[in-house]
Amino acid sequence: MRTVKITLEYDGTGFNGWQIQAKPNRTVQGEIESALRHIFKKGVRCIGSGRTDSGVHALGQVAHFKVATRMNPEEIQKAMNSNLPGDISVLNVAFAKESFHAQFSAKRKTYGYVILNRPTASALERNRCWHIPQKLNLALMRREAQVLVGRKDFRAFMASDPAGRSTEKDTIRRVTRLTFRRKGNHVILEIEANGFLYKMVRNITGTLVDIGLNRLPRGAMKDLLRRKNRVFAGKTAPPQGLFLIRAEY
Amino acid sequence: MRTVKITLEYDGTGFNGWQIQAKPNRTVQGEIESALRHIFKKGVRCIGSGRTDSGVHALGQVAHFKVATRMNPEEIQKAMNSNLPGDISVLNVAFAKESFHAQFSAKRKTYGYVILNRPTASALERNRCWHIPQKLNLALMRREAQVLVGRKDFRAFMASDPAGRSTEKDTIRRVTRLTFRRKGNHVILEIEANGFLYKMVRNITGTLVDIGLNRLPRGAMKDLLRRKNRVFAGKTAPPQGLFLIRAEY
Repeated sequence: MRTVKITLEYDGTGFNGWQIQAKPNRTVQGEIESALRHIFKKGVRCIGSGRTDSGVHALGQVAHFKVATRMNPEEIQKAMNSNLPGDISVLNVAFAKESFHAQFSAKRKTYGYVILNRPTASALERNRCWHIPQKLNLALMRREAQVLVGRKDFRAFMASDPAGRSTEKDTIRRVTRLTFRRKGNHVILEIEANGFLYKMVRNITGTLVDIGLNRLPRGAMKDLLRRKNRVFAGKTAPPQGLFLIRAEY
Repeated sequence: MRTVKITLEYDGTGFNGWQIQAKPNRTVQGEIESALRHIFKKGVRCIGSGRTDSGVHALGQVAHFKVATRMNPEEIQKAMNSNLPGDISVLNVAFAKESFHAQFSAKRKTYGYVILNRPTASALERNRCWHIPQKLNLALMRREAQVLVGRKDFRAFMASDPAGRSTEKDTIRRVTRLTFRRKGNHVILEIEANGFLYKMVRNITGTLVDIGLNRLPRGAMKDLLRRKNRVFAGKTAPPQGLFLIRAEY
């Protein structure tokens, strides 16, 4: 039995997220397991480093599966890419230690969020960014964001159920890097952490955009962290601007 | 009566090219004229700087139409963007001289062609580039391409009908700039000319890629220009890597 580690790029536009669902929706995991069934002639479960939501993209999602095979990694990659639709690419395949687990072994993950900051929307990038027509105060966003770096309780940025209750118990994560850069008309946020709560990056981005548009008072981010309540944070940024950049082990 | 000049971005993936067809196919011109009919409550013809083929994108296509209106350019832009689908964006609207004609007044146009040069295809860019997995000899491509700059007969790079006959009489154009640059895994070709023959950029790109893969002898480009016959040139590069960057007046 081999433990196979794969690195994936996908365009989230045409998927109902990563995870296989009871409903016959198109999902990334579903397409991969369907390709694996075709290649290995049996059901193979594929486990990702984490779920991505509907519309969220990946430049370097990592997943693993276990299979008895004589194929080498290059042959597996070729077979997978021949059997997958064009909106999923297998960038790398490697054999891993038997104990490797794409979700539980992950030490760090990095997400990117792309904002298009110009007057008009972009036809070519409509499924790849969040369009903000108003001018953003990037210096202020950068300054306010710094309180998020370190080991913090991110309860305020976790998706809550309709009653406002948290959906996870341990809400402490360590953010090791948070950067902004302007590149032409784009503002790109990158955030690296040892783990992420559900919708954490989109909730942080939505709040930072509110800050950049001067819709929140100075010190808002620090205050939010302290209050630990989602209802005081900004809106959730839309999924199509979010990219899972990499998972590290 | 106003002559209105518009600048457009579009994602060519979902269109059967620019030009309205007898068949009920979805075209860029068709969508624009449908929006104009809705805004101005009558039929308005919209003329582009040139046609783009099915799958070809535009970052700065220019078009014009004539209409009697009291709306100012900003109001027209807003109304158009509200009535157009997400894969077309109106980037700019301006009133032009009565004599302005998007096709006949054009002095220069620039096209870009994007090649993805890495081992595996890209899920996110599958409709935005031509994937070439083998290593390209960029220095050779650059050197061979230089014979294309200047006033030349581009008959060898014009789409021919099935019998191999030319589809246009005047095949002389002036190429004022032709550059390559490598940007990460991408090779980007930019070509500026006073006009382009049908499929000229895609035929030039296809031939240059054959050169970059060492499939043609040294001096092939010069030889092709001299022979003036499409059948000796390389294959036509696929449409999804081609971008109309700008039209100048």
